[in-house]
Formats: sequence, C-alpha cells, structure tokens
Amino acid sequence: MTQPAVDLTIVGSIGIDTIETPAEKREEILGGSVSYACAAASFFTHTGMVGVVGTDFPQAFLDTWKDMNIDLEGLQTVEGKTFRWSGVYEENMDNRTTLSTELNVFETFSPELPEAYRDAPYLFLGNIHPALQLHVLEQVRNPKFILIDTMDLWINIDKEDLTKVIGKCTMLTLNESEAELFTGERTLNKAAKKLLELGPEYVLIKKGGNGSMLFNHEEVFLLHAYPLDHFKDPTGAGDTFAGGLMGALAASGKTDREAIRQAMVYGSIAASFGVEEFSLDRLAKLDRDEIEIRVAEFKEMCRI
Amino acid sequence: MTQPAVDLTIVGSIGIDTIETPAEKREEILGGSVSYACAAASFFTHTGMVGVVGTDFPQAFLDTWKDMNIDLEGLQTVEGKTFRWSGVYEENMDNRTTLSTELNVFETFSPELPEAYRDAPYLFLGNIHPALQLHVLEQVRNPKFILIDTMDLWINIDKEDLTKVIGKCTMLTLNESEAELFTGERTLNKAAKKLLELGPEYVLIKKGGNGSMLFNHEEVFLLHAYPLDHFKDPTGAGDTFAGGLMGALAASGKTDREAIRQAMVYGSIAASFGVEEFSLDRLAKLDRDEIEIRVAEFKEMCRI
Repeated sequence: MTQPAVDLTIVGSIGIDTIETPAEKREEILGGSVSYACAAASFFTHTGMVGVVGTDFPQAFLDTWKDMNIDLEGLQTVEGKTFRWSGVYEENMDNRTTLSTELNVFETFSPELPEAYRDAPYLFLGNIHPALQLHVLEQVRNPKFILIDTMDLWINIDKEDLTKVIGKCTMLTLNESEAELFTGERTLNKAAKKLLELGPEYVLIKKGGNGSMLFNHEEVFLLHAYPLDHFKDPTGAGDTFAGGLMGALAASGKTDREAIRQAMVYGSIAASFGVEEFSLDRLAKLDRDEIEIRVAEFKEMCRI
Repeated sequence: MTQPAVDLTIVGSIGIDTIETPAEKREEILGGSVSYACAAASFFTHTGMVGVVGTDFPQAFLDTWKDMNIDLEGLQTVEGKTFRWSGVYEENMDNRTTLSTELNVFETFSPELPEAYRDAPYLFLGNIHPALQLHVLEQVRNPKFILIDTMDLWINIDKEDLTKVIGKCTMLTLNESEAELFTGERTLNKAAKKLLELGPEYVLIKKGGNGSMLFNHEEVFLLHAYPLDHFKDPTGAGDTFAGGLMGALAASGKTDREAIRQAMVYGSIAASFGVEEFSLDRLAKLDRDEIEIRVAEFKEMCRI
C-alpha cells in the first residue's frame, strides 16, 4: 500500500520527559515539539514527522503516533538513548524550571526529509537549532507556507543563523518573553514590527493562557485562549497550538489572512485539550467532533 | 438652570497622585477611582460624582471635570488636605509599589448622595471600604444595575462586609490576583464560579493588558485589550474600563448580556486611550468620534 503524499511536514525534537507539577509527577512520558505538533496537526491533515529517537524508544510511543495516522517515514532511529528532559512547574503553573537535559541522540541530529515530504506545500520548522532549520529549507521544493518556531536559547547563542532562517519563512512564532528578548521592545506591538522587518509576512506571538496575537504589515488579529476549569500540564501547549494551526491551514489549502485566523482558532482549541492531561494522553483519545463542539462554544465566547 | 437627573452615579476615591514610571515622574496630578471612572462614563451618559476633596484641591482639577460635563453635586469639599497617593512602576510596568498614602479628608469620608442621584438607574460603587459601599446602597432607590469594584486590602481586612455588599450588586469586578486571593482558586473559571455564589449575576475579571473575562451562570465572554504601541501610565485603567462600561450601558438603557458585551468594548477602548497619557490628560482631549473609530478597528482585530 502506498501512503498518500504528506500535506504538511513538521520537524522538531522528540523527548522522553519527566514532569512535576504541584499536583503530580510523571516520569518518562512522551514529549518533544514534533510529537505535540504532529499530534495536533493529525486531526486535520496528513502529516509527516521528521525527528530522531534512540534504540531505547518505547514501541508504545510509536504506536501512539501510528494510531493518530502520523506519517513516520521521516523518523530516524539511531543507536543510543533518546533525548531526555525533566522540569518542574511552580505553584501557579506559569513558570517552570528545567532540572535536567540529556541530548543523547539529539546531539548529532541532522534532519533528512524523505522524498515524499519534499513537495509538501506546508512546512513547520519546530524549535531546533537554526542551522538545522536552514538545512531543512535546502531540502524542500517550493512550499507555499512555512512556519518557524524558536526559543530563547537560539536568540541568545545564534541570533545570526536564526535571523537568516526567519527571513526565509512565511510566519515566525515565539512567546511574549522571547519577542521582548529578541527585540528589546517593551510592547508586543513594537516587538512585532521589528520582527516583521526580518522578512516574514506574519509574526505570531504566543501568550499562553492569555491567547495570542498575529501581526502582519497591515493588521493585527487577537485570539483568546479557551478558558479551562482545570488543566494538568502546559508542556507542549505552544507546539500543539502551532501544529493544529498548520494542520488546519494545510487542510484548507489556503494561505490568506482569513484562513489563518480560522486555523489559529483550531490550533488554540487543540492546545486547550492537550493541556488537560500530561503528554499526548488527551489528544490521543480526542475526536474531531469534540474539537468542533469546543470551537463553536469558543466562537460564541469571543463574539462582540 | 436645572441640571437633568443623572443616569449613572459613581462613588469612589479622589486623590492627588505622584507617579513614577521608568520613563518619567509626574507630581501632584489628578487621580482617584471616581475621577477616572466619571471621565470615561462622561463620553456616554450624564454622570454624577460622589467623593471628597480637601480645601487644597486645585480649581484646575475641578475645571477638568466640569469641561467633561461631569455632575459634581455629589462632591464634598471638606476642611483639610485631599487624599494623596504616590507609587512607582517597575521596568515592565506590570507591577507597582506604593511609596506613600496620606488619607487626609478621605479618612472620615461618608458618601452622601444628593437627592437627584438616588433614582439613577445605574450605580457604580468604586473601590472604597465595603461599609461605605453598603452605606451608599441604603440611599439609592431601586437601581436597575449596580457594579461593584474592590481591592486586595478589603479582601484581607473586611471580607465579611465585602461579601455582604457583593451579594446586593448585579456585577462584581476585580482583577486576576484579587479573584485568586478571594477564592483561593488557581484558575479564573473556578474563581468566578465561587464569586458568583456570593450573589451577583455577573463577575468581571480584569487582566490588564490581557483583557477581561465576564462570567455569569450560563456563559463566559472573553474580551481583549486594545494593543498599544506605547503607553505612559496604567494608573486608573481598571476604573476607566469600569466607568466606560457603566456609561455605555447606561446610555443603552439596557442590562442584558448583549448590551453588557457592547458596553465592555467601549470601556476597554476608553481605558486604552486613558493609559496613553498620565492622569486624565488623554481623556480630557478625547472625542467620541475617536472612540468610535478605535472601536471599529478593535472589532475587526477580534473578528473570527
């Protein structure tokens, strides 16, 4: 059986995480930016994963992805141990501290796209070293929409490569504090204006439970986060948001502003489900109808 | 000449403020919850102010209010000095520290409503001691919508009176940290549910630059804050928001959920102008057309 070509390629990290929140500690659970992003995208479109795991990677985790119909042709398995991360959340869940990072097989990771992924019209460069993000761009053929994510580490240690790769993408996403770190600006409006000067058409600033803001040269779009009664683990929420956004955008086949607004709503709702449980636990048992019901409820909450 | 009866009565503090931000220090400027709230409400409806000043209160400040057509029959002038407050904002403008508070004539303030204010259909009990808020409620005759604001101080030292007065109001407004302090709940959804149990029909939680959330027993309404390129002084933003909301609601003559949503938009936009300058500097030169233009722009930003 031949797999259909993927509509969306996502590149990023795969980790085995140990996470402690004020309420609970979970050890050795499935994590990583590409895992969250592909899981969210898989509700909307055929998605290919590019990442690396070690030979210790549990079959159960692979099965979780397969059950979500994520295409794993771009997944490399390398002799050694999978990347591991552990962190602890503070009482209010707003801040977290990294306790340990073991790069393992991720240290020498070089993303290689299978032939079937190179023509995918949508590409999401998850948060990895900007030099690796540039390496991915050398392999793709004329994608029509590229989203790039990053983090404070790369802003601090390799702003040059990061600036270069951002200039080749359609949309940059980062969180509030990263936008301020990158630009030195105190308001998000001003930070976004500076980031747009690097070349992307759009800058999407994530504000966690306070929603997100999309900027281009003409307009601003403001999006709330769906308000939850309780949530268990915010790890991966930004990746889930971005993955859901790209999945929904790919499903629409469009790249215009209206399509992006709608795709952001889907990404936001996917993230609201994701944080209800640790790892992919909630997303793995989620169905499309539940998403649609919450999207409708959310739109009513935001209507003015 | 007989003044028309007021549609909205607002009770609160009047202060002479000294404010330091990272960029600028301003001394002895007009402040106080009722000053900000009446200024915002005055764009929409005939508003009566209830508060107290000392004999040192500058004529120029009185003229500022008069120029905005605020009804001052409920303003008491008492021998002595006006309430003074000074504070300093941290680098990010999110947090501020009070440097000094001199109660002066505010210490013995007892709000007395002129006869012409007692039938006003809309009432905003600004942030003062809950016992004084209760005293106001004894004077009014059958208002159709009462908004009450409060602060951490009253939650800490007189939760009993505060709980009592909240139960007699239509809507309670407080900020995020106050909602958490009052209820001990970590998510705003849960905090709002507990606060609704005290009796008000609505709970409005303010999140500063991250907007606000309106809860009742049936639904949630999410509202953004208008994103600004720069702002000078966030002092009084919550009062400006609440005052604008009540002014617009009074102008509509309605009290239903749709009318409240629209009134919140006007309150939010009034606050976005207010913080552009210190004190009432921006509001005093603002006109209704500018408000309408920004409201339209804002609605487009929020459309999904």
